[in-house]
Order: sequence, then structure tokens, then C-alpha cells
Amino acid sequence: MHLGKDSALIVRSREPFNGGPPLSRLAEQFLTPVPLFFVRNHGSVPVINPATYRLRVGGLVKTPLELSLEEIRALPQSTIVAALQCAGNRRSELMAVAPIHGEIPWGAEAAGNARWTGVALREILTAAGVHASAQHVAFTGQDEVERDGTRFGFGGSIPIHKALGSEVLLATEMNGDPLLPVHGFPVRAIVPGYIGARSVKWVGEITVQEEHSSNHFQAHAYKIFPPEVRAENADWTRGLMLGELPVNAVICNPHDGATVPADIADIMVRGYALTGGGRRVERVDLSVDRGASWHTADLSAEEPPWAWRLFSRRFSFSPGRQELIARAWDSAASTQPEDARTLWNFKGYMNNAWHRVRFEVAG
Amino acid sequence: MHLGKDSALIVRSREPFNGGPPLSRLAEQFLTPVPLFFVRNHGSVPVINPATYRLRVGGLVKTPLELSLEEIRALPQSTIVAALQCAGNRRSELMAVAPIHGEIPWGAEAAGNARWTGVALREILTAAGVHASAQHVAFTGQDEVERDGTRFGFGGSIPIHKALGSEVLLATEMNGDPLLPVHGFPVRAIVPGYIGARSVKWVGEITVQEEHSSNHFQAHAYKIFPPEVRAENADWTRGLMLGELPVNAVICNPHDGATVPADIADIMVRGYALTGGGRRVERVDLSVDRGASWHTADLSAEEPPWAWRLFSRRFSFSPGRQELIARAWDSAASTQPEDARTLWNFKGYMNNAWHRVRFEVAG
Repeated sequence: MHLGKDSALIVRSREPFNGGPPLSRLAEQFLTPVPLFFVRNHGSVPVINPATYRLRVGGLVKTPLELSLEEIRALPQSTIVAALQCAGNRRSELMAVAPIHGEIPWGAEAAGNARWTGVALREILTAAGVHASAQHVAFTGQDEVERDGTRFGFGGSIPIHKALGSEVLLATEMNGDPLLPVHGFPVRAIVPGYIGARSVKWVGEITVQEEHSSNHFQAHAYKIFPPEVRAENADWTRGLMLGELPVNAVICNPHDGATVPADIADIMVRGYALTGGGRRVERVDLSVDRGASWHTADLSAEEPPWAWRLFSRRFSFSPGRQELIARAWDSAASTQPEDARTLWNFKGYMNNAWHRVRFEVAG
Repeated sequence: MHLGKDSALIVRSREPFNGGPPLSRLAEQFLTPVPLFFVRNHGSVPVINPATYRLRVGGLVKTPLELSLEEIRALPQSTIVAALQCAGNRRSELMAVAPIHGEIPWGAEAAGNARWTGVALREILTAAGVHASAQHVAFTGQDEVERDGTRFGFGGSIPIHKALGSEVLLATEMNGDPLLPVHGFPVRAIVPGYIGARSVKWVGEITVQEEHSSNHFQAHAYKIFPPEVRAENADWTRGLMLGELPVNAVICNPHDGATVPADIADIMVRGYALTGGGRRVERVDLSVDRGASWHTADLSAEEPPWAWRLFSRRFSFSPGRQELIARAWDSAASTQPEDARTLWNFKGYMNNAWHRVRFEVAG
């Protein structure tokens, strides 16, 4: 079976399988082609038989459900273009500030934008009948993750108000084709505007409950701790439990460390920008003088609220060392912090500092 | 009639009436007392006869309404604790970066947190029956503003999805008492999580429409322009139309420029933090070494999502010049930019740079 591992990705780890595209190719198209879409897995890639697959829906519902893939596909189908971004995207810049142990050193390639088709989660919740006491909806995957000697499916949860939004899907297709196994075949959650970890793959169980998921990846991992906290002294019941994404902009071309011949020093700068929670990317600023002055980039046409926006602008550079900086603004007038040094946290999550690319124009 | 002008506010302008409290008193209580609540007006304070007051509801509705104050009060009543913040809060720090003309030089006192009671806007919209084509809900006040030789009521609009949220009220009470005239008697909009300008006072008309309000204060003012744009060269049809608030933290005690006797250099640092769009303030960090290291502040108990959170932490300071910095993080893992210089815009809106207080401990 074609798992999707033989793609154009730069592999970060084979088992579990993790990888992302060359950053330079990420802003070429509004919809990220499947072979260029980053893969973030925490355990095995399960090979699931679509004929015997079942989705169980339980917890605080009036009618527990057990649905086959055929039954899921027979429900009203929705399509949405949505960006996903791993909470660890741009971790390598935090690692340059101070060491971070046991985590993937992602560049800025752990993000992508695709067209997802499936059934809105709220259709399923409505069919099951949610109790008034419901506060969270938890997903559990059919993969197998090992932590501290136990094996379990990757999981996470989202607040009920989010789960009832029309944008949250149980997706079976990505860019018009059935999901590949590495992307969650046959069914994955798509939670637009949230960290990628909440878009649980290979969903086998949906549980409506009063508390957030007690799964390791909700209750323990994917939290931001204050900068003075280290793994050794962390109180894991505390920390900022990640959900919605903050605003972020990334320059994909030119790439950091590049050398550009002087005769093509007229460069089309390109990149992507995204934000969370249904906010919109409103503006991207570019600076060639370390943030002293800014130039407004051109944005791709107004896109649906959960998609990313591509930006571009042509600059002429003189020979020598150059630095480009990007920052985005969203519809909450939120913009990005200046310096990754002020954002460092020992798990290396949610770096959305100004994105800086240094390159050389040959003389 | 008691308009509310004879309060504890430091008056910024008499006509229109604008003022805010001494910043040091703002974080003393979770609910800001009415005499300490900032007032931001753009025109006259109308004195409205409650017996003849009418609220007209029209536009894209099936049944236009005209409601007396008595009829509004007979509808189901809601109460919410919500912070309001003027888009110009902390403008004075931007003015220290570069001149800003014709705007109020607000310190950080143009924010407050109160208990509002009234009817949820969605009750009224449901009663009127909203057409499917509705995209925005516009409010127009019964005050009189003059711009470019014409007189009109202050106005603004919010997207339909926000207008249908249970948190948006047409309020008649503030902290348990009828609104004072300066705060919008008899009826004002309360749009939690949005800039204060959308919480239109003295609402006389509600119009359901396809486009945002064409009122000067929606279509022209209250936009953020890129730093290179000036009033003279602004294309007013562009700019980031403000709505949701970004995350912000403000130190209220000690105050900037204070001199503290050495024998009380053990200081309880206090302040407020807020954010927009239903996100929550999750953490406030304080630094006494210009941001090189941070200390997590204590937050007031988990508050309803639209309220502000007060923070505090005790520090011992040595004699000499001291600087305190505060920054907040919200549930979207958004934090504040470092430096007001990077946020300057010619209208002076939405400064949420790290808040810095410089003071002297006497030797």
C-alpha cells in the first residue's frame, strides 16, 4: 500500500515518520500538493482496512453511534480550504537560542494549506445528541504511540463551541483524493485555526465529555511553559494548553543562507502567512533594514477564513550580506513579537517571532 | 441631570467629554467603579428622555421594530462582565516615538471592566427576523458628531456572526445602576472583545445590512495603516479596519516616573491584562532586567471570558533607577510585541507593546 512516505519530503525521522518539504517550494501554490504537505506523526502509521473501519461516538451523548466509512460518506459532505501548522513549526530558531531536547528541529516547513472534504463534526454530534453538560470533544486515533512503557492511540480534544463550528470536519479527502495513510486514512479530524496536533489522524473514537482529553498529547505535551521552567522542574498540570494559533509569517524565497548571483539580485520575495481562531491575515510587512522601515507585501486574493495567504513583493538588492524580515498582522490587530529569544520555552512551541532570512548577493 | 462628568476622571477634553482615571487606581478592583471608568466621546452627550426614547431596528429584517425603553426592559435580560478598551489606549507611548496629530494622548487608562445588564442583541435580531443575506449589524447613536461640516450620530458595525453571539448586549445598566449619560443612557451596545468604538452609546438605530457601516468611524477612522503611511498620503479605503482586540497587559502600580522611598521598596506590582475575540488571558510575565528573564505574575481567579484579569506580584528593589516590564499571553499563544517603535501608525491605534514602567527607589 502507498503510505505516502515516498514523497518529496525531507525526512526528519523514519519511525515515527516525520518530514516536511523544502521550504523554497512551500509558497509556490495556494494549495499545497499532497507530496509537499508536512507529516507529523507520534507513532506508527496504521494500515486500516476501510471495509472494517468503524468510528465510535460516545460519552455525553443521547445515542452512541458506530459508523462505517460508507455511512460517514453518506452524510452531508462539506469542503473547506484550511491551513494546518504544527505547534513545533520554526522550533529550530528557538534551538539556536538555547538547547531543546528530544523534539524535532523543524524549520518553517511544518505548515501547509489543503482542501479537505468530509462530514462536519457537528453533523455527527447532532445525530448523536449532545448532553447539556458537554464541554469538550475528544478524538482518539487508531495509531499506536508509546510513552513511558504504555501504548495508546494519539489523542486530543477541542472545546464544544469549537466542535460545533461548521469548519471542523472529519475529513476523508485531501485536495480531492482519499487521504494517504500518513495523513490519516481513512478519517482524520480537521480543526482549522488550531495547532495541528488537534487534527487527530486515523480517528477511531469521538468522546463528548466534561473535561479536556486526558490523553498524553493534551494533558501533558503541547503546553507552553514560562521561560524559566525546564523539563526537570516543570509542573505538568500547569502551562498554557495550546489550542488556537497565533499570527505567523514565513519567507520561503529567498532562503536563509542562500547566495544569489548579482545579475538576479532583483528578487521576488515570497512566503505564507496564517493565523488562528477564524481571524484573518490582513497585512504582511517586509523590512530590508532590520525593522527600521517596512514595505507592505502583496497578498493573494481574499481567501476563505481558514486558509493561509501567500505574500510576495519584488526587491532589488545590492551585492553583499542582506537580511529580510517578515511580520504579519491579523484582524485582531495582533502582530508578531520581534525576537525568538523572548519566546523560548523548553518544549519549543509556537515560535512566531519576526521571520528573518539572511542571504548573500554575490558581488 | 447628573451626566457623569463630575467624576474622579482626569479630563482630556471638555467638549467632547473625554477622560480617564488615575492609572494607579485602575487595578484596585476587579470591577471598575463607574466614577473611574474612562469616557471616550466624539460629540455631544445627548440628554435623552427615557419616556420618548425609541430604538428602531431595520434593514435586512423581516419585521422592522420600534421599541420603547420599557419594551426593551421587558425582553429577557442578560448580565455579563466585560472589559472595554479604547483603540487609542496607550497612544502616548506611540507619540513619544513620532508625532501623532489631532488625537487624544491616552496613557494606559482608557480601559475598564464592568458588569453590564441588558438584552442580548440576538434576542432583538431574532424577533426582527434576519435575512440570509445579512453580513453586518450597524449601530447609530443619537449623539451629534461634526466632521467636515456635517453632523451625524456616531456609528459602527460588527459582523453578523459576532452580533449573534450571546455576549453582545444592548445594555441599560452598568454595575447594577442605570447607565449615566456619558456612558450612553438609556441604551448602549456592549461588544465584548472588540475595540470600545464598536460599543456605540445612545443607540437609536440598528441596521442589518450586507456591508459594514458607512459611518465615518467605521469606514474612515479606526483603521491601522502601515508605518510608512501618513494622513497626507493615506488611501482611506484601505487600512486594517479594527475589530477584535489583541492581547495587552498594563502595570498600574508602581507608576511611570514614581519615586519610591527605600523603606517601602518591597513593592506589590499590580496591573490589568485583557485580550479579544473570546480568547483568555493565560499568563502575565514580569521582568526587572529588560526582558532577559521573566517572573510569572499571580492572576486573579479564572474570570468569565470577556472580563479582564488583574495580576500582581511582590518584588524587592534596590535603590536606584528601576524598570519593570509586563507582557501577557492569551489562549491563542499570542503575546505582545517588544517595542512601541515597531507599532507606530499615524492614527496611534492598538499599541500593545510590552508595558514599561521606570521609577526610582530613593537611596
